Amino acid sequence: MTRLVLKFGGTSVADTDCIERAAIKIAAEIARGHQIAVVVSAMAGMTNDLIEYCRQISPLHDAREYDAVVANGENITAGLMAMALQKRGIAARSWQGWQVPVLCTDRHGKALILDIEITEMEKRIGKGEVPVLAGFQGISSHRRVTTLGRGGSDTTAVALAAALGAERCDIYTDVDGVYTADPRIVPHARKLGKVSYEEMLEMASLGAKVLQTRSVEIAMKQNVPVQVLSSFKDRIGSDFPGTLVTREDDIVEQEIVNGIAYTKDEAKISLVGVHDLPGVAAGIFGSMIEAAINVDMIVQNISHDGTAVDITFTVARSDLPRALNALQKCKELDGTEIRSDEDIVKVSVIGIGMRSHAGVAQTMFKALAEKGINIQVISTSEIKISVLLAAEYAELAVRALHAAYGLESK
Amino acid sequence: MTRLVLKFGGTSVADTDCIERAAIKIAAEIARGHQIAVVVSAMAGMTNDLIEYCRQISPLHDAREYDAVVANGENITAGLMAMALQKRGIAARSWQGWQVPVLCTDRHGKALILDIEITEMEKRIGKGEVPVLAGFQGISSHRRVTTLGRGGSDTTAVALAAALGAERCDIYTDVDGVYTADPRIVPHARKLGKVSYEEMLEMASLGAKVLQTRSVEIAMKQNVPVQVLSSFKDRIGSDFPGTLVTREDDIVEQEIVNGIAYTKDEAKISLVGVHDLPGVAAGIFGSMIEAAINVDMIVQNISHDGTAVDITFTVARSDLPRALNALQKCKELDGTEIRSDEDIVKVSVIGIGMRSHAGVAQTMFKALAEKGINIQVISTSEIKISVLLAAEYAELAVRALHAAYGLESK
Repeated sequence: MTRLVLKFGGTSVADTDCIERAAIKIAAEIARGHQIAVVVSAMAGMTNDLIEYCRQISPLHDAREYDAVVANGENITAGLMAMALQKRGIAARSWQGWQVPVLCTDRHGKALILDIEITEMEKRIGKGEVPVLAGFQGISSHRRVTTLGRGGSDTTAVALAAALGAERCDIYTDVDGVYTADPRIVPHARKLGKVSYEEMLEMASLGAKVLQTRSVEIAMKQNVPVQVLSSFKDRIGSDFPGTLVTREDDIVEQEIVNGIAYTKDEAKISLVGVHDLPGVAAGIFGSMIEAAINVDMIVQNISHDGTAVDITFTVARSDLPRALNALQKCKELDGTEIRSDEDIVKVSVIGIGMRSHAGVAQTMFKALAEKGINIQVISTSEIKISVLLAAEYAELAVRALHAAYGLESK
Repeated sequence: MTRLVLKFGGTSVADTDCIERAAIKIAAEIARGHQIAVVVSAMAGMTNDLIEYCRQISPLHDAREYDAVVANGENITAGLMAMALQKRGIAARSWQGWQVPVLCTDRHGKALILDIEITEMEKRIGKGEVPVLAGFQGISSHRRVTTLGRGGSDTTAVALAAALGAERCDIYTDVDGVYTADPRIVPHARKLGKVSYEEMLEMASLGAKVLQTRSVEIAMKQNVPVQVLSSFKDRIGSDFPGTLVTREDDIVEQEIVNGIAYTKDEAKISLVGVHDLPGVAAGIFGSMIEAAINVDMIVQNISHDGTAVDITFTVARSDLPRALNALQKCKELDGTEIRSDEDIVKVSVIGIGMRSHAGVAQTMFKALAEKGINIQVISTSEIKISVLLAAEYAELAVRALHAAYGLESK
């Protein structure tokens, strides 16, 4: 008997009709002989409504109370889904985070799952009961409700799959898989059959909004295969109608490049004429750490006269005001010009096969140059190359790169 | 320092503006030097929406899942109210039923509160923190969410007041007190300054929808004074702007009649020609008990020939189909004609002073006779007289009785 965790996102449970359709999919998996656990998100729009209430009361609200408010949407769906399954003759019960419990860190609003105590749930699964767990939530060491941040139900699902030793975690969503690029920009983008954890991690953190980054991290660490598939299409024939995110070793044909991702969520900061002395960079980036701001791409060049350097880096766009504020107070930057630019896009080429292939970067630079696109910053890792461009080139660059690596024809 | 529990109902917390206004009232009580605990209902309409979702999924849903769904409205208000208090510089935190915990019976949908474990809450109150408890909910012995039935937040508030040893429980609602009759029917109905627990209990169970019956029972048993007052009017001057529900001994001027209540929620069943033998009545009402149907007014008359009796009684209107079904299967009723009538109203005259006054019933019968209203059934207790009338006379009868007892002039 194969054990699966099935997760249904907000659009898959948008209203009671959608919940019924999701229940039919769950019933079909049970009819196939699988042992099932379910994780659900809030009905589409509900979490936004709850966040809006919090904002109306106070933009600077207590994160513990924010969590106590916004976690309720998932409780509601969990109860309704249990009812919808029972209606189909399936023994089912809802679980709220505190009932399991799903133990989390105390970082409210962005908590991490520490442990899922499955003893009681496991016992009930053994008796044929289908657990329906409210995603996105858990409890802190102080027994307060915590939430996992946007997309957190994916993480709940993968963590539950790991805790239950499930063979796979199926994430039902409003897209039918992971694509080589955003299909809204590249109409002929191709759905990937399989993608490695590492690639998915880069894609998720680089703007492909299919899975929460943290869920991929847990899947990779715990070796849980994750399938992304559509809740609006019927599975016909294929065992894996979506995209399977899995270990590199399980992917026979590894592509050099598997996807083009982009994000407009970053902003660029340039420090012009920084004193070229030991400890200056540590002072600058130390001030960012103190302000709890993540710094992404960093580039440093020696200036013309050799006594000063120019440093450029990126931060999340939402962190830019705080970052500039912290830099202005940084004594190492006395006399340094601080420039910032929000009008940028980071475009990335991702592929596990590029480790063993030369010329991947060259193809990228050439394709962008042919379209007359200037590269502002470059950063590379083993399996991705990212460049920073003027925001207006975002779509053009993504389409040019998709074509240059021949992604649609494969 | 006076300790008070303040409860805000659905219309008092209908949106974030209402929640802010309620927070201002709470802040004012704290400024008066009182120590405060707060209980909140769901934002008006939210519980109905959640009930409607349950009904859409399945009219015959699992009561445990129903509770897991409908209890979330109160969690949301509790978090938002804590934020609204914090914004005003008041240390506050929300409590969900499971966090306290509020321990309840396992009777889902209509659970009773068994105990409120206030140890941790008490500790925090001692440090100046205002607890904001989600009303209407608790947990069962199986750690499932339970709800207390419609109006259950009143019961949560009174039970919390009892547990915390509060001096009073203030119920903020959309009316400014308890009236001598429904002001929609009797425009000159008078607001009562004080009313005894016993009278309030009769009024609550006889259709005055100001307080949940169970909350009055607990208040009486635990001797918690309860004030009903408006959340939409400002308190000017008076310490008790609403109606104080309290011990009989604390009411100096006891009225003979304090109120006229009515309910259209009952149905009448008449059994014509029942065999006049020992055990027959036991068989009939035993079948009602088996079907878990509460029977209210019962009248039995000897029939003309002395070998048969006619029995009339009332049940909740929603129970009528099940009651008739049970009676048709009752072997003691072979050959008996079973009649039913939903078109009735029960009108009651309530007053603690009637215990020591004669002629109260006579005033009632005379006033109804003068309007040509036929009395179908009569039942009395120490502090109330109820009559069953054709439904069409409801308003006329209430107004006639209100005038007959001179209630508006006092």
